[in-house]
Amino acid sequence: MSQQLKIALPKGSLQEPTLSLFEKAGYNIYSSDRGLRPSSDDSDLDIYMIRAQEIGRYIDQGFVDCGITGYDWVYENKVDLEDLAELPYSRASTRPTRWVLVVPENSEIQTVQDLEGKRIATEGVGITERYLAEKGVSAKLEFSWGATEVKVPDLVDAIVDVTETGSSLRANKLRIVDELLQSFPHFYANPNAYRDDWKKEKMDRIVMMLKGALEARDKVGLKLNLPKSALEPVLEILPSLRRPTVSPLADGDWVAVETVICESIARQIIPDLKVLGAEGIIEFPLNKIVP
Amino acid sequence: MSQQLKIALPKGSLQEPTLSLFEKAGYNIYSSDRGLRPSSDDSDLDIYMIRAQEIGRYIDQGFVDCGITGYDWVYENKVDLEDLAELPYSRASTRPTRWVLVVPENSEIQTVQDLEGKRIATEGVGITERYLAEKGVSAKLEFSWGATEVKVPDLVDAIVDVTETGSSLRANKLRIVDELLQSFPHFYANPNAYRDDWKKEKMDRIVMMLKGALEARDKVGLKLNLPKSALEPVLEILPSLRRPTVSPLADGDWVAVETVICESIARQIIPDLKVLGAEGIIEFPLNKIVP
Amino acid sequence: MSQQLKIALPKGSLQEPTLSLFEKAGYNIYSSDRGLRPSSDDSDLDIYMIRAQEIGRYIDQGFVDCGITGYDWVYENKVDLEDLAELPYSRASTRPTRWVLVVPENSEIQTVQDLEGKRIATEGVGITERYLAEKGVSAKLEFSWGATEVKVPDLVDAIVDVTETGSSLRANKLRIVDELLQSFPHFYANPNAYRDDWKKEKMDRIVMMLKGALEARDKVGLKLNLPKSALEPVLEILPSLRRPTVSPLADGDWVAVETVICESIARQIIPDLKVLGAEGIIEFPLNKIVP
Amino acid sequence: MSQQLKIALPKGSLQEPTLSLFEKAGYNIYSSDRGLRPSSDDSDLDIYMIRAQEIGRYIDQGFVDCGITGYDWVYENKVDLEDLAELPYSRASTRPTRWVLVVPENSEIQTVQDLEGKRIATEGVGITERYLAEKGVSAKLEFSWGATEVKVPDLVDAIVDVTETGSSLRANKLRIVDELLQSFPHFYANPNAYRDDWKKEKMDRIVMMLKGALEARDKVGLKLNLPKSALEPVLEILPSLRRPTVSPLADGDWVAVETVICESIARQIIPDLKVLGAEGIIEFPLNKIVP
Amino acid sequence: MSQQLKIALPKGSLQEPTLSLFEKAGYNIYSSDRGLRPSSDDSDLDIYMIRAQEIGRYIDQGFVDCGITGYDWVYENKVDLEDLAELPYSRASTRPTRWVLVVPENSEIQTVQDLEGKRIATEGVGITERYLAEKGVSAKLEFSWGATEVKVPDLVDAIVDVTETGSSLRANKLRIVDELLQSFPHFYANPNAYRDDWKKEKMDRIVMMLKGALEARDKVGLKLNLPKSALEPVLEILPSLRRPTVSPLADGDWVAVETVICESIARQIIPDLKVLGAEGIIEFPLNKIVP
Amino acid sequence: MSQQLKIALPKGSLQEPTLSLFEKAGYNIYSSDRGLRPSSDDSDLDIYMIRAQEIGRYIDQGFVDCGITGYDWVYENKVDLEDLAELPYSRASTRPTRWVLVVPENSEIQTVQDLEGKRIATEGVGITERYLAEKGVSAKLEFSWGATEVKVPDLVDAIVDVTETGSSLRANKLRIVDELLQSFPHFYANPNAYRDDWKKEKMDRIVMMLKGALEARDKVGLKLNLPKSALEPVLEILPSLRRPTVSPLADGDWVAVETVICESIARQIIPDLKVLGAEGIIEFPLNKIVP
Repeated sequence: MSQQLKIALPKGSLQEPTLSLFEKAGYNIYSSDRGLRPSSDDSDLDIYMIRAQEIGRYIDQGFVDCGITGYDWVYENKVDLEDLAELPYSRASTRPTRWVLVVPENSEIQTVQDLEGKRIATEGVGITERYLAEKGVSAKLEFSWGATEVKVPDLVDAIVDVTETGSSLRANKLRIVDELLQSFPHFYANPNAYRDDWKKEKMDRIVMMLKGALEARDKVGLKLNLPKSALEPVLEILPSLRRPTVSPLADGDWVAVETVICESIARQIIPDLKVLGAEGIIEFPLNKIVP
Repeated sequence: MSQQLKIALPKGSLQEPTLSLFEKAGYNIYSSDRGLRPSSDDSDLDIYMIRAQEIGRYIDQGFVDCGITGYDWVYENKVDLEDLAELPYSRASTRPTRWVLVVPENSEIQTVQDLEGKRIATEGVGITERYLAEKGVSAKLEFSWGATEVKVPDLVDAIVDVTETGSSLRANKLRIVDELLQSFPHFYANPNAYRDDWKKEKMDRIVMMLKGALEARDKVGLKLNLPKSALEPVLEILPSLRRPTVSPLADGDWVAVETVICESIARQIIPDLKVLGAEGIIEFPLNKIVP
Repeated sequence: MSQQLKIALPKGSLQEPTLSLFEKAGYNIYSSDRGLRPSSDDSDLDIYMIRAQEIGRYIDQGFVDCGITGYDWVYENKVDLEDLAELPYSRASTRPTRWVLVVPENSEIQTVQDLEGKRIATEGVGITERYLAEKGVSAKLEFSWGATEVKVPDLVDAIVDVTETGSSLRANKLRIVDELLQSFPHFYANPNAYRDDWKKEKMDRIVMMLKGALEARDKVGLKLNLPKSALEPVLEILPSLRRPTVSPLADGDWVAVETVICESIARQIIPDLKVLGAEGIIEFPLNKIVP
Repeated sequence: MSQQLKIALPKGSLQEPTLSLFEKAGYNIYSSDRGLRPSSDDSDLDIYMIRAQEIGRYIDQGFVDCGITGYDWVYENKVDLEDLAELPYSRASTRPTRWVLVVPENSEIQTVQDLEGKRIATEGVGITERYLAEKGVSAKLEFSWGATEVKVPDLVDAIVDVTETGSSLRANKLRIVDELLQSFPHFYANPNAYRDDWKKEKMDRIVMMLKGALEARDKVGLKLNLPKSALEPVLEILPSLRRPTVSPLADGDWVAVETVICESIARQIIPDLKVLGAEGIIEFPLNKIVP
Repeated sequence: MSQQLKIALPKGSLQEPTLSLFEKAGYNIYSSDRGLRPSSDDSDLDIYMIRAQEIGRYIDQGFVDCGITGYDWVYENKVDLEDLAELPYSRASTRPTRWVLVVPENSEIQTVQDLEGKRIATEGVGITERYLAEKGVSAKLEFSWGATEVKVPDLVDAIVDVTETGSSLRANKLRIVDELLQSFPHFYANPNAYRDDWKKEKMDRIVMMLKGALEARDKVGLKLNLPKSALEPVLEILPSLRRPTVSPLADGDWVAVETVICESIARQIIPDLKVLGAEGIIEFPLNKIVP
Repeated sequence: MSQQLKIALPKGSLQEPTLSLFEKAGYNIYSSDRGLRPSSDDSDLDIYMIRAQEIGRYIDQGFVDCGITGYDWVYENKVDLEDLAELPYSRASTRPTRWVLVVPENSEIQTVQDLEGKRIATEGVGITERYLAEKGVSAKLEFSWGATEVKVPDLVDAIVDVTETGSSLRANKLRIVDELLQSFPHFYANPNAYRDDWKKEKMDRIVMMLKGALEARDKVGLKLNLPKSALEPVLEILPSLRRPTVSPLADGDWVAVETVICESIARQIIPDLKVLGAEGIIEFPLNKIVP
């Protein structure tokens, strides 16, 4: 084991989707329940499971070479890292995490300006400070240890909290006043580590595979047989995610076409392909796409 | 959102397999636990989750344009709907729901004629009435609110109940006297709605995709390399679900063949293909087949 | 139902992975929780669910024609069976079961020789007897009904127990002194049954499909488009699990290449393929591979 | 087994609290999951598990001698039974089931009169018919097979549904227009069966024990030592659920007092008793109280 | 920690009821999931969790001083132990474990004599050998590793298996031919250990408390107020589990009576007590009874 | 609702034991899963569920009148509150929470002095700062967002973390260097609120009932009949938690004795009582004890 890449992955709500993304990308990580140091089937990797809030700090200090954590926490911690890629996944959906300024539905607060002199609770004190400074508003900020949503209006006037879909906010009868930030996980590197040739190449390969797996999430493969005469109009309506493969068939008047499309396009385009004369259409699943 | 298709899907035991079928067909439906009105990733759809027993009624009255429900409940409700397709899936298997006339194993009742003047409990009062009328038998019918199987012989002489596999009947020491009906889910439309061009095309596309997903359930893709000389005998034994694609290989004496077969055929045919000289046989999963 | 093959599958910890392997191989087995005699979608099969420890005995006595059980239990039982194939899967990983001689971390016992006159508990009395005889060591062996790991050092001096990963041993502060045996499941036949033509062919087909499913576990399909000029260097770096298919594309300067590789190779090779000029790389899952 | 009492208990949401009440009353009923005919440790009882909706019908027809079911379903079925006792328990709380007329929060319907000509869905068609007749309102009633709450406003204008706490209604943004009925379980007898001496005495004993167990639910026993001089003021503030027992103590200036009070009174009265000079106050749980 | 009592408790299906019995007896045992050596709140105890099958062997060999295990396994192992008490509890009920000779419902075997020359599978080879010897029957016995019930009739002609309620046998369509043994857990001591004064006294105390807790299982305390004149007839009908306490009340014409009765008697006697003039009857739970 | 007491209870790991303690004390709190403001059956109470870390702050600021939280967090926050009672319960046992300085088993750090210049992670930055200042040690402290135990030795040199039993520390191969603090929950009041007569009396009553419920946890009631002659020696060995009640019995030579003892004493004393001639000993459970 000559050289290893120290990589930090987030414990907590992002843990399962992150490990599952690595598995789709071809890296199996064997994570016990509480372990900080899971093993994997790639002996080049030295993996640390760390809270998302702290990953930026440990990359910045050089304790790990690189890692995946939310853009929000890197912004909160004001650390300066090499940003290799945005990875558009999240804990339960494909929507970004949103940091929002929230008040009770029936609060008199309508804009951030109305918060002058008021009390705000948040887990993201740094994010909120920078936002308020930018808006020229002065308010009392307090760090919240959790269960932030239930603190308005009894304990504070407003909160800054995280949401993906807003449904939890609606259930608590809260209203969004403003959005401070949208955030997806990113792959960050320590600038010094990224200058090391071996580490740089290793990180670039991992990023390529992670993006390939994300790219394939909502895509499917499509094969169909076509009368040669229909080839041109079919190629016109096929979206060009990937150069379609056209192969001759035994029956010389027909060709086989194979391509990759979005699954949500498939339900639109398959009926149209039938109209154009396609036969034997089959759709099959994909693991990865590297364009 | 100019125009929308109101579509009813069954709550209850068919809910999970129905939503899963839509997902395979390319439509993601986001259904909260109790919600009547789930959202989806197709903004053309306005979805209602309704009990299977009531869907026919609401399509008939025009509250929704179309929907999926069992043939049995449409028959029970005696409503007159446009029947676009039978969809051969069920709650836990691929077997149809069967409505059966059932008595205790040791009952003296041997045929429906023996029920003259007897008491019958059932959730399908309409189905049973029509069956008895047809057989010329007169019996006392009572609506059962559930747990019908345990009512014989203490509370009634016979029951008409639903079964897929018969195993629950055997466990309760019951005997089937006759079968009244077999039923799969169908896609039904309100006749007026089906006369609307936009709605008709939308329904037809959905039905095509649902059938494509069902078609692919037990099918697999198969690829293999063949000496050219073996092509003819191989094509002969390959079942003709779809025109096989034959492609030349770099080595001019060999060709690549690709086709689609039933998974249960694969276990028969792969050993035979080996005997005929096939090499590099791979089998891969499919999402949809539109012949 | 003219002729049937009596086949024994292991109840207990190997049950789930075995049934799942059969499903991947194309045989669906409908197993109720406690049932000895599950049904399947292949009416040629007459299936028995039996404890792994007893399967060898029942094959040997001719109560069943063939079955899957661990090599270790066949060795323990000293029965003489036809060994058709090793099937490299296990209860929770892809590692073999290991029978190991174990003592407490701080025990004075360093080698098997130190066990002279000592007490050993094990579920594998036969395996241990043969091992000790071979080593020329005489010790007191007692059959353990389970929970063997916790018996040292209070009740016995050493144990012979089963482990896959060793993690449970470490958690109990135990040390491995020696390894007696490594064992995977095998497909065994009764020698007389294997002389029957129909049964022999049936068994061989099943073994071929099981091996095909195991073969596909960690493999993926790979397709890519290439400039013709890059074909030769690409074919050089592609591992040769299966003859790659090379097809012409509409654009005559490009070809499509399709092959099968190990998933763990994919993460190495895809970046290299990009460097060589590959485009539109897609990776797709496989069900079976029969080379 | 000379004579037996046929008694019906409710399957479904009342099943667990009913069996648990019988256990507290001293009758252990061994109920398998789906069984209609559980056994018990009182061989005088012949027990039927039947849906609450149907119990009244089967008591009325004489298939069973007596049973426990909600007052609401007896009212719905318009059967004439001997009403031996109201038993104030419910599925999840100690509050009665309420049948309420419900509309969406923002509906224009304010009183039952506004329902003239409107559509109403309900599982209690009889209850609703009688209520509307009494109010002189004519509306279209349809039987709901379940999931009634989600039908307004898309499928019907109003519903009549069951609630205990109203919280599910609030979560669905519904408003209560009127309450039709409050209902607890009752112990009902068939009038003929109640004329049989043996059966009457058996039913009366069961009712006494059920009421004794319900009575003890929120009560506790209380013991304390008192200076004789404090006895009078203490007896004055002790609620008179049961004649307190006053016993002499070894120290002739002190007496021991024992009584039964509501648990919610205990938290009020114990501090007051301390002020009056009580010592060694202990509170202990009760199983049954028969006053 | 001068002296300790080594005591073995059964792992497996008896574990939970045994630890729960000790808790009721006043000994809290802190048992981790797999641990052989749990701690407790009585530092005199050195506890071993061992399989019920092996406890007799380890008591006999002197590895532990005493333990609780089924009479059946001591009989199976033919060891000679001091039998301090039968403890009538079991894994899921209060019925003894029964070892029964079992055949398929439709087997031709009617008595043990019909087993001459037949095959029998059992986990209790010793128990079965002694039973067959006593009956003068010679059969082929094989040790069963589990799932014994499903082996008839395919693999063996009969089984000897354990049952509490017989329900699992009925579900498997099996018929009991004979009963070999009934067995409850016993408290056994090594004869030498029982000669040690300190150990003997410790064991006797534990046995007294275990029996006290078992004694209280189905008993309840009962208090009531009575007119003095009714005292004699009431004392006559009260079962004499324990001398009733009769105390004077403030009102000199009344007395308070307190006693202990079986819970199943309570439901009979309370109505009778009411008839005799009792008032303020309360029933309360008990932890232990030492007569 | 004239006046109410605002009381804060801890969300998180202390939530269940706290609500359960209130229930035993006679206050039923109806807590939905996430709700900050549960209702209760005492309309005098206005309840807030808040993180234990924040309760001290909100009592200090006067947002609530009183609350229950760990002594540790009040110490961490350096707030000055009225301390009404220590309540000796905890999340999973009856042991206090311990804040301990922890290093890896094989670390060179032996005393707190060895931490000079080292890195320490902790959730209790205030507690640790005050401890280090007291010891005259200067180290780098960083706030840990959780999963603190797994940070040594890779990310920090030592941690200050919370433990009840130390078992999690042992499982992680950590060693305790020093203990900073032991902590139980306390009932704290805001000094101003405690000066309000109504609030003071309300708080004092609640504290009395909470302590009464805690007091009864490990106690039991004991009744026995005695020959008069044995009364004196028995009273001598009975522990004096509460003045025993001695009542005459019908048989004038006997008396009934009733008392309260620790459950762990019961197993010692009952055998001794038997020796002294006691009969009919019964032990019964208690809800509360107010001495």
